[in-house]
Parts: sequence; C-alpha cells; structure tokens
Amino acid sequence: MSRDKDNLPKARLPRGFADRSASEIKAAEQVMAKIRAVYERYGFEPVETPFVEYAEALGKFLPDQDRPNEGVFAFQDDDEDWLSLRYDLTAPLARHVAENYERIVKPYRTYRAGWVFRNEKPGPGRFRQFMQFDADTVGAASVAADAEICMMAADTMEAIGIPRGDYVIRVNNRKVLDGVMEAAGLGGDGHAGTRLSVLRAIDKLDKFGPDGVRLLLGKGRMDESGDYTKGAGLDADTVAKFMTFIDAATSDLGETFFSDLEQTTLGESDKGKEGLAELAEIREMIDGAGYGERVKIDPSVVRGLEYYTGPVFEAELTFEITDEDGRPVRFGSVGGGGRYDGLVGRFRGEDMPATGFSVGVSRLVAALAAREGEQDKPLGPVVIMAMDRDPAAMGAYQRFAREIRAGLANAGLDLGCEVYLGSSGMKAQMKYADRRNAPCVVIQGSSERETGTVQIKDLIEGARIAKGVTDNKTWREERFAQTSVAESEMVATVVEVVSRYIGTER
Amino acid sequence: MSRDKDNLPKARLPRGFADRSASEIKAAEQVMAKIRAVYERYGFEPVETPFVEYAEALGKFLPDQDRPNEGVFAFQDDDEDWLSLRYDLTAPLARHVAENYERIVKPYRTYRAGWVFRNEKPGPGRFRQFMQFDADTVGAASVAADAEICMMAADTMEAIGIPRGDYVIRVNNRKVLDGVMEAAGLGGDGHAGTRLSVLRAIDKLDKFGPDGVRLLLGKGRMDESGDYTKGAGLDADTVAKFMTFIDAATSDLGETFFSDLEQTTLGESDKGKEGLAELAEIREMIDGAGYGERVKIDPSVVRGLEYYTGPVFEAELTFEITDEDGRPVRFGSVGGGGRYDGLVGRFRGEDMPATGFSVGVSRLVAALAAREGEQDKPLGPVVIMAMDRDPAAMGAYQRFAREIRAGLANAGLDLGCEVYLGSSGMKAQMKYADRRNAPCVVIQGSSERETGTVQIKDLIEGARIAKGVTDNKTWREERFAQTSVAESEMVATVVEVVSRYIGTER
Repeated sequence: MSRDKDNLPKARLPRGFADRSASEIKAAEQVMAKIRAVYERYGFEPVETPFVEYAEALGKFLPDQDRPNEGVFAFQDDDEDWLSLRYDLTAPLARHVAENYERIVKPYRTYRAGWVFRNEKPGPGRFRQFMQFDADTVGAASVAADAEICMMAADTMEAIGIPRGDYVIRVNNRKVLDGVMEAAGLGGDGHAGTRLSVLRAIDKLDKFGPDGVRLLLGKGRMDESGDYTKGAGLDADTVAKFMTFIDAATSDLGETFFSDLEQTTLGESDKGKEGLAELAEIREMIDGAGYGERVKIDPSVVRGLEYYTGPVFEAELTFEITDEDGRPVRFGSVGGGGRYDGLVGRFRGEDMPATGFSVGVSRLVAALAAREGEQDKPLGPVVIMAMDRDPAAMGAYQRFAREIRAGLANAGLDLGCEVYLGSSGMKAQMKYADRRNAPCVVIQGSSERETGTVQIKDLIEGARIAKGVTDNKTWREERFAQTSVAESEMVATVVEVVSRYIGTER
Repeated sequence: MSRDKDNLPKARLPRGFADRSASEIKAAEQVMAKIRAVYERYGFEPVETPFVEYAEALGKFLPDQDRPNEGVFAFQDDDEDWLSLRYDLTAPLARHVAENYERIVKPYRTYRAGWVFRNEKPGPGRFRQFMQFDADTVGAASVAADAEICMMAADTMEAIGIPRGDYVIRVNNRKVLDGVMEAAGLGGDGHAGTRLSVLRAIDKLDKFGPDGVRLLLGKGRMDESGDYTKGAGLDADTVAKFMTFIDAATSDLGETFFSDLEQTTLGESDKGKEGLAELAEIREMIDGAGYGERVKIDPSVVRGLEYYTGPVFEAELTFEITDEDGRPVRFGSVGGGGRYDGLVGRFRGEDMPATGFSVGVSRLVAALAAREGEQDKPLGPVVIMAMDRDPAAMGAYQRFAREIRAGLANAGLDLGCEVYLGSSGMKAQMKYADRRNAPCVVIQGSSERETGTVQIKDLIEGARIAKGVTDNKTWREERFAQTSVAESEMVATVVEVVSRYIGTER
C-alpha cells in the first residue's frame, strides 16, 4: 500500500469510546451469564432490538433536559428520515411491543443485554458507549410485577457474588413524589421545570445530605471548589414542607412508617396517598415472599428518567470501597428502573402497563473487581516452539497442537495450545511463551525429530527453580522442569504438566 | 402521557434492521459459544473495539466500489470530526493494533464477535446490521499463519455440527490472481478498475459457470430475466488466457497441479509464481497436520475486499438445501478472509503482517437451521396461577416460585418458574400457561390455602388425555394429570413432573 509518511491517519478512538481487553470481556461475560441464568429462572425470555431506530420511534426521554437536542447520536437515512443509535433498551422495547402487540403473549416477561449510546460529554468513567442488561414485564398493571422485578434484582446481586447485607434494593413510587409536589402547589404542566429541579435536588440527598438538599430546593448551593449550582427557587415554607417529607421518608421503617409519611404534606394529595398504598402493597408482598431484608421501601429514591409513572427502584451496593482520595465511600447504584405505563402507549394511543429494571454492567463489573482485588493473570496456552520453519516441520507442529488440544479437552482442562508463528529465534520464543503465561512449551528440533521424541519444559517450575526457591525441596527434585518423552507420550505428559496448575472444568 | 391519536409515532424499524426473537438469539449464542471454544483452544484471546470510530481510521475498503461514498453510516461529532459505525471488524482491529503496538505481544492471536453496519440497499436476507465473528493473527509473516487460520476454520465447522464432507475450506492467493492479471497486461494503477471487473467476473464462476465468466470477461452477460451486466471488456485473446487459467485452476488437485497452473499465463509473472509457491507451502503444512481432506487449494477463489495482499480463504458448505423455487442448491459461503499486510501499516507507514477469518454468524445459523429442520418449541416455565390477588396471597405465590426455582436448579433442571401477573381469570390463565408451553401449573385458592395444600396440574399429560389418546393406557391411569399435595411436597412434586419432560443438565 503506498502512503505518505507525514500524512498517515491517526490510530486513535473518539473521546468516550474504548477498546475492551480479554480480561474485561471475560469478567463482563461471566457476570452477564449469571444475570441471564437468574432471569431465565424467573421465566423471562430474551428479545433483542437493533442498534438503529427511527429517531421518532425512540423519542427523547433522557435525564439531561438541559440539552434537549443533544444526548443522542443521529443521522439521516437516504430517504431523509432521521435515524438514531439507541440511548437505552427501554424505548426500543416499547417500539417492539407496540409493533408486535397482537402476537405477544401477555403479561410478557423479557430480557436483553446490549450496548447503548449517549452523545454526551465524556469524562472519567463516563463513556459514550456502555452496556445495559434489562428485564421488563409488559402487560401487568399490578404492582406485583414491580415487586417481582425488585426480588429478581436482589437474587441477581447474590447470584453474581454480592452477599446479603452488602446490597439493598430500594423502592419508591413516582406518585409519592408527585403527591408531595402537588401538595406543595407544584402540580400541572406549568411547573414541569421546577418539578425536575426538585427531583434533582432530592436525588442529591446521598451526596450532600439534608442540608445540601435544603439549599438546592431554595436558592442554590456552592460546593467546596466554589462552583455554584442554581436551586429550584422554592420559598422557605415550601422548602420546609419538602424537608418534613424527606425527614419522614428517611426514618426507619417502623410499623407507623406509612402513616407517619401521610402526616406530612403528602396526605393532602390523592396521588400521593395512592403511591403510598402501592408501596405498602409492595412491602407486604416482598415480606411474604421472604425478601424483606433485601428490598426496602425508601421514599427518597429518585430516578432521573422522565417516563416513569409509578414504582421506581434502585440497586445499591452498600459496601465501602476507597475513592481516588483514599477515603472510604459506598460503591452506590449499579442499576435501577421503574414503571413506564405510557411508553408503549406513545404508539398505540392508550396506556400499556410496563415495568423494568436495567443493570449497568460495567459498573457492576467494576464493583466486583473492587471487592475481589487484583486477580492472578490466567494461564496462557501451551506453546509449541517453531524450531524449524520448513512446511513439513510446521505441518508436524500443527499436528502436535491438534493432538494436544484434543488431549486437554478430553481431560477437562480449559486451556489452549498454539504453534509459535513469528520469525524469532529460540530465546525470543521462550520470552514470548513467558509473556503469554504458558505453563509449558513443547520443543522438537531436528535431533528430537530423528529420535521421534519431544522436549517438554515446565515454565512455572522452571521459573521457580531459576528464582532459587528452596522450600519444598523434595518435590522439586522429583519433578524436573524439562523432560524428554517419545512423541506418543507427548499429549499425556503435557496434560500432566498442565493439570499441576489448573483444575479440571466441572 | 397526553397524545394526539391521529399523530402517533409509527412502531416500525428502518429498512434492513430487524428484532431478534428468543429462538434466534439462543441459536446464535449456541453457535458462537462453540466457535469461541475452538478459538480459545487455538490460543486466540478476545479483544473488542467500540461500534463508533473516526471515519479516517476505518478507511473505506468495502467491496462496493461503485458507490465509494456510500456503504458506511457516518455522522459528525460536536468538534466536526466525522465518525462512522464500523462496517467490519478488521479495520477497527488494525486501528487497535497500531494504537497499542508496543504493548501487544506478537504474534498476536485474537478473536471477537460483533455487529457491523452497512449503509446499503437492504433486500431479502440482506441486512444493514449483521453479526461477524472474526479471528486474526497479527505479526506473523509466514503463510503458516494462514494455514493455521484455515485449519481452525475447518475445526470450527465441525464443532458447530457440520460433519466432515459437508464443508470445505477453499484457499487461494491474491498474488496468483494478480499474476494472471500482470501476465495479461492488466498490471499497474491504470488498470485498477478493469482488475476489479475481472475479479468480479471470476467470482461468478460458481453461479454462472465458465461460459458466464467468459461473457463477463468480455462484453457482458444477459441473464434470464433480460437484465444485462456490463463485462470487463477484454479482447478475445486476453479472455482466452483467463479461461485457460480458470480451467487449470478448477481441475482436480493432482500431483502436477501447481506445474499445470504455471503452464498457464501465470508462469510469466514473478508475483504469480510467488503466489503459487505460497499455496504449495500451505498445502504441505495442511497435509502434514492432517487437514488435507478439509482444506483445499482452489485458485478460482476470489474475495471482494480490496485490502487482501496474499492468501484468501472461503468456508463453503457443500450440502444441498432447497431454494425458494424448490430446487436443490449448495448452501455456499458462510465465511472467509485473507491476509491484509497493509492495513495496520496505514497508521504506521510500514507494513505489518496480518491475516484473519470472518464468520457470518447469521448465515451459519441459517445453514444449521436448514440442516436440522423445524425444532420442537422448548418448554416454558412452571406457572403459578394467581387465584387471589391480595398482597398476602401474591407474596405467598412469589415464595412458592422462589422455592420451585431453587428446587429445579438443585435437581439440575434447566427450567424457570413464574407467578401469573396479569388480571385475567382462571380460564385465561390456563390459556396463558398453554401458550407459554408450561409443563405444569401450581394452583392455590382459598380452599387449598386453608388445608395447606396446592394443586399441581400436568399440562402435557392433560393435553394428551384431552386428545383422547388411548395408547399407553395403564401408564395414563397410574398418573393423574392433576394432583393435590401438601405445600411441603410442592417442590418435589413439581420437580418430578418437570423431569418427565426434560433431561437434567450435565
């Protein structure tokens, strides 16, 4: 290929996009397989939608209302229609259900994992492409469906290895928050902007505490760096009403919890009372099913998405990790969801009950990594050294590789085998095998070929000897790091060496 | 949500995009898990790139040269840079390797599965989003790497269940075709367009036979419908040279095969001879490794992509299926690839040897489905009927579901359990369970609750009785389709019923 050295394209990715390494892929796959298994046990079945949809079909329900025309990657089709990359998995599911309405058996439990895209300003840990894993129940109006989703979220946390007590599924109801707003005189379309500011202020309770929320409900709040966030601009009386609610909402869940809450301004709103009654129902079902310690009612939970109409949930990890400044912090939210009865209805002109939950896969994987700490680098494949490069020798090495692969598979050993394919000499090949973390190498030069033998070198034991480790002396003397065997013994010997270092698959 | 019934968004997908059903997803996942296992056994490890790249980094190497500015979905970033959705997995891998050049241990064997996007005119079976599964070896200049990829492709076909003899991996070398072009006076940049037309003509050998290719090399060819395809416009002498080559290239692979080929115009070109020598080497390695029956040299193979520089491969299924008109046809290609030594070099200003293979997952799944024919609908989950809807009853049903899920899992039975969440009565719930293909339902109304019992109804046996099947009479009389048991016996009874119909997991 002819090219101008000064004018080469740059090998780089756009901001907010990243490659995934083998270990990242495997960690995510393991987590997703466990999530999938839980969802299937609950009777959910997969359905997937494509990455590209009509912009009109997706609508715009992103939390970032400040930039209503941004947030989504969009482009025009050749017939001028606007297409968008999906920004979540819920809007496409609503389109799918509306499109296949008659055919779908309802209530319809379904799940899917997939990449979604946000055309937002990227930052540390904030990507423009990320993986979500969603489960949804469509066609069930009862909050029994919401309760089930919460229980399934709890089971999911335990299935991926987060022990009971280290996570909590928190449940609220949009109707409760709407009720407080209504009682505070913030109902109706005219106050939509203020309501959003109030929701965002309450959403910061975890981060800034009640005093911070009070400031954000009023004029605004200055942070430590001097940055000022404008508040919702409520007067002192109204702020006080919200603070009374927040105080009651965050109290311990005693027997009088729901009636305590009703004593706040909430009691003035029918919608608020309805929301509380639904929460009480959810609590009874969850207790009855044996999930009471794991799924908690918490009326301070706010979810950012505009389309929620009823119960909202959040999966929170409660164990502490260390932040960038070395301080212990709670890991926080790894997923959430809620009821969105209007989303399918956008297409049909009548509401269709639906509720769902979305796991942020990358955050969950990061949480597990933070718990588990640094893992050992996994073993790489057995490497067959390329001592000779003529086609006859290379063909024979590939035959060795084929036989070793079959032998490892038959022995239930989850490891590969490869022939060295570069052009380097013996020393560089050994270094390659080391960097691949191979447990052993197989060597056949011309002298071994003549005698029908191969050399098998145990690199792990070899490294131990080289380091002069003197413990376990007898063991070391019994097993030589390098051994010469007949070709017919090669597979058995490699299997024996590999089985010193890894267990067999189940 | 307020909405104008006459102005609803349409629930539809753009042309060329499709949803995937549960059975499609599961079929693809099963195939991909098997491919992945083979690649891992060969020492390949996963790396993934994002869906969005700088347009400049991807370049344009699509086969459709007629529309050089189309084929790719592109959009501008907020800093005006052009971004593209990836159109294959090879160009992004080249970018990844160039970007991480120093860190990567070479030769680098790597694999990835992912969706790719083509902004082309969709048609039947032709989508604008489809799944590829690629494996690549970067940093190995020797054709030993190409030979290995071909052997791995052969192992992959067998791992997914295509028996030996029903597939073939065909190998050619771009240098051979370039050599024939050179000998025919079509070398140099000035003939690039003609060379492409010639490649396309030869690519039609399977479809139109030698006579069709002859027409396409000359003035052109009219098909049965009267559509005319313009030819490469070669004169009769030049056409004759190509036909001599094609004749030799498609002859049986006897001992004199390579020398026969050299007797054609090919012998006049150094590049052509080099290509032949490489093919001979590949054949020797493949025979030596024991893959001679499965990987065949075939100098008539053409791959459409512009970036290939050496060996090219094609995985072809040779068994017959029935086409739309009921005629038997070979299934044909399910994947291919080749050597692309210049692609990493685009970024670095110097070539970097690389070779790879790409499986078209959807086509492969379609091929397997065509072989296997219609499958039985898989069993759905055990359904717990919602006889009462109060929170206490619903909580208890969810507790039943939790216990049954655990019981099925402990018994190694791969089936879920769900509570009916709709608002319908008993009859509609039974219909729902039928449509879900549930093996049995669990029923507890108030009378059962009072006595601490549940009813378990075997729907499969029930359907058999309802149909009045009279064979196996004794068996039928011994097992009633509906049974009443104590709550404490519920799990064991459900496990027993389910195990009548599905085997245990390994």
